[in-house]
Amino acid sequence: MTAPNLLVVSTSTLHGSSYLEYILPSVKTFFPPKGNIVFIPFARPSGISHDSYTEKVRNAFSSIQLSVKGIHEYTDTKAAIQAADGVFTGGGNTFVLLNELYKMDLIELLRQRIREGMPYMGTSAGSNITGLTIGTTNDMPIVYPPSFDALQLLPFNLNPHYLDPDVNSTHMGETRETRINEFHHFNTQPVLGLREGSWLEVHGKKAILKGALSARWFAAGEEPVELPSGHIFEL
Amino acid sequence: MTAPNLLVVSTSTLHGSSYLEYILPSVKTFFPPKGNIVFIPFARPSGISHDSYTEKVRNAFSSIQLSVKGIHEYTDTKAAIQAADGVFTGGGNTFVLLNELYKMDLIELLRQRIREGMPYMGTSAGSNITGLTIGTTNDMPIVYPPSFDALQLLPFNLNPHYLDPDVNSTHMGETRETRINEFHHFNTQPVLGLREGSWLEVHGKKAILKGALSARWFAAGEEPVELPSGHIFEL
Repeated sequence: MTAPNLLVVSTSTLHGSSYLEYILPSVKTFFPPKGNIVFIPFARPSGISHDSYTEKVRNAFSSIQLSVKGIHEYTDTKAAIQAADGVFTGGGNTFVLLNELYKMDLIELLRQRIREGMPYMGTSAGSNITGLTIGTTNDMPIVYPPSFDALQLLPFNLNPHYLDPDVNSTHMGETRETRINEFHHFNTQPVLGLREGSWLEVHGKKAILKGALSARWFAAGEEPVELPSGHIFEL
Repeated sequence: MTAPNLLVVSTSTLHGSSYLEYILPSVKTFFPPKGNIVFIPFARPSGISHDSYTEKVRNAFSSIQLSVKGIHEYTDTKAAIQAADGVFTGGGNTFVLLNELYKMDLIELLRQRIREGMPYMGTSAGSNITGLTIGTTNDMPIVYPPSFDALQLLPFNLNPHYLDPDVNSTHMGETRETRINEFHHFNTQPVLGLREGSWLEVHGKKAILKGALSARWFAAGEEPVELPSGHIFEL
């Protein structure tokens, strides 16, 4: 891992505000000014088309003077990644996203460009794939990818939209914490539970937890701990 | 599909009651009296051991005069399935369960014995695998199975612990219904959302919805419909 620049965002949208609204000031300083950003729409939230999804991002990014083109609009997708000033991968279904990246043979190239320093931003599923595997996604396995191995830009797994147990619930399905504990019966890497409104900003070997809330850190065989906003990870 | 006898139960435990308590009267009439039941503990809820999980089932089943042995207690697991009067697969993590069944080469044998009429009961993950694929599980993909194809005893998919959208929630993660709709962008089979306290009793080509609640039926490209308790499916 040389020098990744990452914006690893739990959710694109906060309740009651518009798409990406709360995070746009950070996006603006993260990507190069007037940069040419390639958007990866493959996660297809609610099954929307790549065009509609890209349009949504274009609208949001236009207010911070960033131009966006969907990767599906390029005939040569590899050349698009090679030439990009930055990449943004939106949320949706993590299995669909990863499957498509494998099918288009973009995993290795993305990894390489990001390790070289090209800024990469993800929200939700797009953040999930910055970890070691997608083994801690909340999504339904609606397609079968060739592997659960992700971009592996961070030495741990992510759980975006992290949810605390609802103490008033009578539902018997597993809580998020129980699920992550079960993950640790079969996997050794730590898991970062990022609540909605939280994000990680990564530059080289340093990551900072941003947003108003704390994040929950699960290391195998240890009690989970709350990391305060502003916490610095040495990678 | 010849003549499967299935008890496809959404959840093992209702809030405020003990393990399997509410379903035991149905279990008693479903399995042959004093039958020798093989229990499959592979889904390992909360990562508990196969022994502890089997003990829990043995305690519950002893009150209805059924003897239980965990499949892991047999040296020849295939002979165990061959000789069983019935099989019960408990809940936990669906990926772990299916992965283990593939590793032990038990999928085809189970399918065959159940199609011949051997009674099969599942709860939660154990119910999920009676459908076509595990593509509509709620579980985390904590291990990577060789396929998402399940036992395929029913011509649709299951979603156990089905949850209605919480209209008061400010959480931006997808609702269960949104997830199932996304499933239908990539898959054609219907999905049965079984709420906690509901179960399907299947005999041959007929399945009946049991329990107090209705179930939610999602067919690709159609509005979901509520099926009342007592609804009969022709398979």
